[in-house]
Amino acid sequence: MNAEIIAIGSELLTPDRVDTNSLWLTERLNAIGIDVRLKTIVGDDDLRLEEAVRDAIRRTDLLIATGGLGPTEDDITRKIFARVLGRPLVLDDTVLEGIRDRFRQFGLTMTSNNERQALVPRDAEVLPNARGSAPGLLIQHERTLIVLFPGPPREMMPMFSEQIEARLEKLSHGERIRKRVMRSTGIGESALDQRIAPIYGQYSNPATTILSKPGEVEIHLTATSETAEMAEKLLDELAGRIEDELFPAIFSHRGESLEEIVGLGLTVKGYTLATAESCTGGLVAKRITDVPGSSAFFLEGHVTYSNASKTRMLGVPDSLIAEHGAVSAEVAEAMALGVKEVSGATIGVATTGIAGPGGGSEEKPVGLVYIAIADDVQAEAKPYTLFGSRSEIRERASQIALDLIRRRFLL
Amino acid sequence: MNAEIIAIGSELLTPDRVDTNSLWLTERLNAIGIDVRLKTIVGDDDLRLEEAVRDAIRRTDLLIATGGLGPTEDDITRKIFARVLGRPLVLDDTVLEGIRDRFRQFGLTMTSNNERQALVPRDAEVLPNARGSAPGLLIQHERTLIVLFPGPPREMMPMFSEQIEARLEKLSHGERIRKRVMRSTGIGESALDQRIAPIYGQYSNPATTILSKPGEVEIHLTATSETAEMAEKLLDELAGRIEDELFPAIFSHRGESLEEIVGLGLTVKGYTLATAESCTGGLVAKRITDVPGSSAFFLEGHVTYSNASKTRMLGVPDSLIAEHGAVSAEVAEAMALGVKEVSGATIGVATTGIAGPGGGSEEKPVGLVYIAIADDVQAEAKPYTLFGSRSEIRERASQIALDLIRRRFLL
Repeated sequence: MNAEIIAIGSELLTPDRVDTNSLWLTERLNAIGIDVRLKTIVGDDDLRLEEAVRDAIRRTDLLIATGGLGPTEDDITRKIFARVLGRPLVLDDTVLEGIRDRFRQFGLTMTSNNERQALVPRDAEVLPNARGSAPGLLIQHERTLIVLFPGPPREMMPMFSEQIEARLEKLSHGERIRKRVMRSTGIGESALDQRIAPIYGQYSNPATTILSKPGEVEIHLTATSETAEMAEKLLDELAGRIEDELFPAIFSHRGESLEEIVGLGLTVKGYTLATAESCTGGLVAKRITDVPGSSAFFLEGHVTYSNASKTRMLGVPDSLIAEHGAVSAEVAEAMALGVKEVSGATIGVATTGIAGPGGGSEEKPVGLVYIAIADDVQAEAKPYTLFGSRSEIRERASQIALDLIRRRFLL
Repeated sequence: MNAEIIAIGSELLTPDRVDTNSLWLTERLNAIGIDVRLKTIVGDDDLRLEEAVRDAIRRTDLLIATGGLGPTEDDITRKIFARVLGRPLVLDDTVLEGIRDRFRQFGLTMTSNNERQALVPRDAEVLPNARGSAPGLLIQHERTLIVLFPGPPREMMPMFSEQIEARLEKLSHGERIRKRVMRSTGIGESALDQRIAPIYGQYSNPATTILSKPGEVEIHLTATSETAEMAEKLLDELAGRIEDELFPAIFSHRGESLEEIVGLGLTVKGYTLATAESCTGGLVAKRITDVPGSSAFFLEGHVTYSNASKTRMLGVPDSLIAEHGAVSAEVAEAMALGVKEVSGATIGVATTGIAGPGGGSEEKPVGLVYIAIADDVQAEAKPYTLFGSRSEIRERASQIALDLIRRRFLL
């Protein structure tokens, strides 16, 4: 079974609005063995939409269109499909009553333009919309199954999941697709690929894709099989071999964030954490406190941007800063030890560096960051040379700081 | 002049990769008076691409296609366009030499599959690509101008700007479009719309769009005129009237972020800032230090997540926390005064609240946040009832804290 998607609405042609519907639909359709071959995005333009619909119906088993079902003149989907299919629009009393009810619920009187939403091509099946006034429509036309959804994702997505997905799954004879996302840090994209290419190279199924962002490399595995269970088994095997090879770089197997994993580790060990940040400016604390319930393990954070604050808040000696500079291994270590001391936390982490774009020198260039971790057993600080924009350098530094905590749990 | 865009590549049909090229191209084409009517995204599928190209050429003045120009078998763009246009592919020696040079530069020998990138449909104009090996192509076919670009945005975008945009602008007889983005905070979307609808309702040009995200409402104005200068004049008039009506809610006129505006204000006034955060967990400090050069005005941040840290780091009396609770106007004010005092900054801001999802009570529900600001003249703390997810509540609270600073500059 193959499919095409038509996204309708002039706003979808502009950079202000990304057509997330069709990306989401493609993934869900792929998962149940339906191949999306083509996608058209068309503005509120009668002639072009008519042609796009006509062409798609000629080619495809399944056509899903989103948008253009609202109450205004711009909403041309109903009209154009009725025209192409040669089916008159009929006023559906049940739908009309539903729209009236919805208005009453909110204490409003229905305006007459809303009646338009109750017009239904002859012999179409109405798909109720619990979250909006425009219902969806399902039409079998010759060999093509046509599904029309309203545009808002919060209406479309549950309608697809609840009313359409299982029906399509029954019709599909295609193979099932399952995906897995493994996230790693502390190893660059090409170094990672060199190590695991000999492994995933032995598998055409699952297929492996490697995606990189600042401080993190994702490994996406996609398995295809007759059943979902068999696809999961294929994923388990390859994922296990990749994880063994990359240990300890992989921090999550189902897409969890690094801060969630660190929060989980702190909770399990019963440890507490405090942070001392210079160049990351609060980003490490912000990420840790993104995790719900973080007050159980996160005690406090210090953003010591000025030298005076490093001394006063963390007890870093003036003389140490004077001798080595604020951006140094010595000061990073003193910050980590200091924050552990003042807070009474089990673990202290610290960052100090030059995020740029200004402030670099030949000796200490933009991107040089010292990151330190201290616990009851030891304290250590290391230099890192990070690249990218100011925000990328800060992102990478916060990633290393969080990963140093995670790696402590592996000891 | 009207246009269509075809984006080529199976990966663009999936949620892993958004087709940013066509969104960017649409905006640039609109700006020079060219109307994008339809966009097709097609996988690496010969038949469907051939049909999409054939249909587009029949309809449009300008056809821009991106992607599928690389050296592998999957890269079918050249072959399909040659077939549809009925023009044989000819090996272009200059292009071939260029690709060879590129490989030599990197100390590599060109593999034979790269020769494919030197195949050019007869009478096509080659568009050099300074950032990659695949050149672009420009072909006038009957009434349609066809431009083929490589897929990577960092190659495509400069090729369009440097080699194509000015040529299209000469051909276009359409009206020029200019946009302006005004950003506001401290007023909700519907309240804002009620106040400015009577103003922008008087103008069909510029057109006004209102977009809302947590803690911020954007007003997008789009003006169309014969010249860019006249379009800018139209924008100036409407933007001025909207700003007067909404004063002081509009914080930026050219899309600048709130933290940039706050940083600019602190710099101009010669003020310094320190932050004391509980529920925002470092987000306010992180946003302020996102601004390059922020070490000139940002002294330090305190993330006092535990009660003990509020007392020790900021001098908030135990008894005050015991009497009013950590989430209270009294504690927020004491935090702002405390951080101003310990840091010696001109301005101290503080947040304390319940970001959720847990931790709420009937008396102090999730979303209740107290935000305080203190300077030499006065200190004040106010309650805010914020809605949304944990991250939305934190985002909104940080927005209010930053905006309180900005509003001080207006006094």
